[in-house]
Amino acid sequence: MSDTSWLSNSVGRLCEQSRGQARLRQSSLTKPAGALGRLEDIALDLAAMQGRECPSINEIFITVFAADHGVAAQAVSAFPQAVTGEMIKNFSRGGAAINVLAREIGAHLEVVNLGTIFELPSLEGVLARALGAGTFDLSIAPAMSADQLRKALVIGRDAASRATASGAHLFIGGEMGIGNTTSATALACALLNLPPADLTGPGTGLDSEGIAHKIGILQQALQRHEPSLGDPLECLRHLGGFEIAALVGTYISCAQSGLPVLVDGYISSVAALMATKLSPKTRNWLLFSHRSPEPGHALVLEALQARPLLDLGMRLGEGSGAAVAVPLLRAACALHADMASFAEAGISEKLS
Amino acid sequence: MSDTSWLSNSVGRLCEQSRGQARLRQSSLTKPAGALGRLEDIALDLAAMQGRECPSINEIFITVFAADHGVAAQAVSAFPQAVTGEMIKNFSRGGAAINVLAREIGAHLEVVNLGTIFELPSLEGVLARALGAGTFDLSIAPAMSADQLRKALVIGRDAASRATASGAHLFIGGEMGIGNTTSATALACALLNLPPADLTGPGTGLDSEGIAHKIGILQQALQRHEPSLGDPLECLRHLGGFEIAALVGTYISCAQSGLPVLVDGYISSVAALMATKLSPKTRNWLLFSHRSPEPGHALVLEALQARPLLDLGMRLGEGSGAAVAVPLLRAACALHADMASFAEAGISEKLS
Repeated sequence: MSDTSWLSNSVGRLCEQSRGQARLRQSSLTKPAGALGRLEDIALDLAAMQGRECPSINEIFITVFAADHGVAAQAVSAFPQAVTGEMIKNFSRGGAAINVLAREIGAHLEVVNLGTIFELPSLEGVLARALGAGTFDLSIAPAMSADQLRKALVIGRDAASRATASGAHLFIGGEMGIGNTTSATALACALLNLPPADLTGPGTGLDSEGIAHKIGILQQALQRHEPSLGDPLECLRHLGGFEIAALVGTYISCAQSGLPVLVDGYISSVAALMATKLSPKTRNWLLFSHRSPEPGHALVLEALQARPLLDLGMRLGEGSGAAVAVPLLRAACALHADMASFAEAGISEKLS
Repeated sequence: MSDTSWLSNSVGRLCEQSRGQARLRQSSLTKPAGALGRLEDIALDLAAMQGRECPSINEIFITVFAADHGVAAQAVSAFPQAVTGEMIKNFSRGGAAINVLAREIGAHLEVVNLGTIFELPSLEGVLARALGAGTFDLSIAPAMSADQLRKALVIGRDAASRATASGAHLFIGGEMGIGNTTSATALACALLNLPPADLTGPGTGLDSEGIAHKIGILQQALQRHEPSLGDPLECLRHLGGFEIAALVGTYISCAQSGLPVLVDGYISSVAALMATKLSPKTRNWLLFSHRSPEPGHALVLEALQARPLLDLGMRLGEGSGAAVAVPLLRAACALHADMASFAEAGISEKLS
C-alpha cells in the first residue's frame, strides 16, 4: 500500500514561543494563579497550536462520516442496520443531535456517506463517497480491501483539506454506523492487546445477553485476523469501518496541516489511537472533549494520555460530545484574551 | 429576628406534568434512549421548573455579591484585603473573569457591594449596599449583628426580585471577598459537624503552612461560637459573610419565585447548603455547575446530594464556574426542543 505513504508526512510543529507568551500573559490576569483550572491549560495549548498569544475558536468545521458495517449481520447492535441510511437522511434534513448542536455553536456541518447497505439518493449536505454497501463482516473476513482502506483514508484527508481551506480554527469529526462500536472495540482490543470482555459495553443499548454475544463475536474476529493485526494499517483494514478509517485519515491530515482537532467519544478516540500509531506526533493536535460510559473508552483515553473535559454520560457519537464541549474552549479563549491584567486594574498582587 | 420570617414562605412547586410531557418527548427523539446522558436530565429538570415541555435558557441574570471579612486580619488569605475593593472596581470596568464570561453567554451582570474596609466611590454597574466596613473578625466575635444579617438576606432577596422582574430564565449568584473561604469553611464545618482539617484548602493560594494556620483560626472560631451554632440563622450570623448571607437570601427568594438557580463553586454551595437548612424545598430549584478542588466542596455537595456538571479544577468564584456551564444547559434545551422524532424522520426504532 505504497499510496498510503502520505500518512507519514511530517506533522505541524507547535509554537512553544507562543505558548510561553501566553503563559506570561496568563500570569498577569486578575485572578489567583491557576484559578481557572483546565481552562488555563486549554488557552496555552491552543496558543501553541495557533502560533499566537491569544488563540480563538470562531470557525468550526464538523464532518460526520457515515457507513455500514457487515458485522451488523451478527446482531451486535440494538438497532436495525437500515438506521444508518435513515440517519444520513435525518442529517440532511437537519433533525439529528449534531445538526442542532452545530447550529447552537455556529459550526459548518457536512456529512460524508462512505457506503450503506441500501443505496441512498442524492441528499443536500451529504457528500456521496460510497466505497461499497458497507464493510464486509469482520467476524468472518477482512472488513475492507486494500483499495477501500486507501480510499477511506483519502476521503478523510479530503475533509481535513476542506476544513483547512475554509479557514477553520477547529475540526470535529463525527461518525455514524450501526455496528461501529463492535468495529471500534475490535480495533481497540488489537491495539491495546486486551481481551474483548475488558472493553465491550452496550453500545447504543444492548442488554447483558447482547453484550455477551458481542464479546463472542469479537473473540472470534480477533482470533481469525490475529496474524494480520501486528501492522496498524492491516489491523485497520481487517477490523475497521469505512468511517473509522476516514477519521484516521482526517486526524492525521489535520495534524499535518496544523489544524487543531477536538475528538468526540469512544469510536472517535479509537480512530485517534490508530492515528497516533500511524503518525505519533498527530497526538500534539488532538484535544479530547468527553468521556463516554462505554467501558473501552477509559482504556483508550489512558493509552492516549488524554483527559477529556466533560464526563456527562453521553454516548451518541455524531461528534455530539465534541460540539457540546466547544463553548468551554471558547470561554478559555475569551478569558485569556479579554481579562484585565493586575497592572491595568491596579490590583495588589499576591502577598509573597 | 421575626423579620426574617419571609425565609419560611412557601417555595415554588415543580410541574411534574411538564416533566412527564418532556420525558415522553425525549423518548421520541432520534437517538438511543439515554444517549445524551446528563443533558437529558437537565432538560427534564428545567421542564419541571419552567412548567413547559420545552424549556429554554435565554435570559440569564448574574449578581455578584462582594464584601470584606474581618477574619482577613488573621492572615487567612494569600491576597491583601484591599483586593476586594480593587476587584469591585475591576468588575465595574468589565475586566474580571465574570465580566468576560457574562459577555460570552449574553447574560445581564450586576455587582452588589455589601461593605469593604476601604470606602468605594460610586461605580457604574455596582449597587452600593454597604452594611459596614466588612464583617467583624469571626475568630474573636460574631461576624455580624442581627440587623446586618437581616439586611444582607434582604439584599439577596432584592437581587432575586430584580432577576424575576427582568424575565430571567436562570439566576447565577457570584461572590468576591478576601477571606471568604475561611467564613464558608467555618459555616460548612458547623453545618456538617466536621472538623476544619477535613475541609480546609488553599483558597486563592495558601501554602501548607498557611493552611495549617487557617485550620487553627477555624478551630478557635468554632470553639468560641459553639453555643450559638445549633440554630442555622445564628450560625450564619456568627460565622458568615455579608455576601454569603446575601446568597442565602437570594437562593431562597429565587426558589420562592420559581426561578431556577445555577450554583457556582465552594462558597456558593455553602450558601446553598445553608439555604436548604432554612428552607429545605429551596433544593428543588438549584442546579449545580462545577466541582472545585477546594476539599470542603465535595463534602458540601454530598450533603446537598448534588452532582455538578463540570470538574475542571476551577476555583475562582465570582459565579465563573456557573457561567462556564451555561452553554451545557442551553445545549440540553436546544437538543430537547429541536431534534427530530423517530416518526418525523421515518427511522426504525430499536429492535425489541
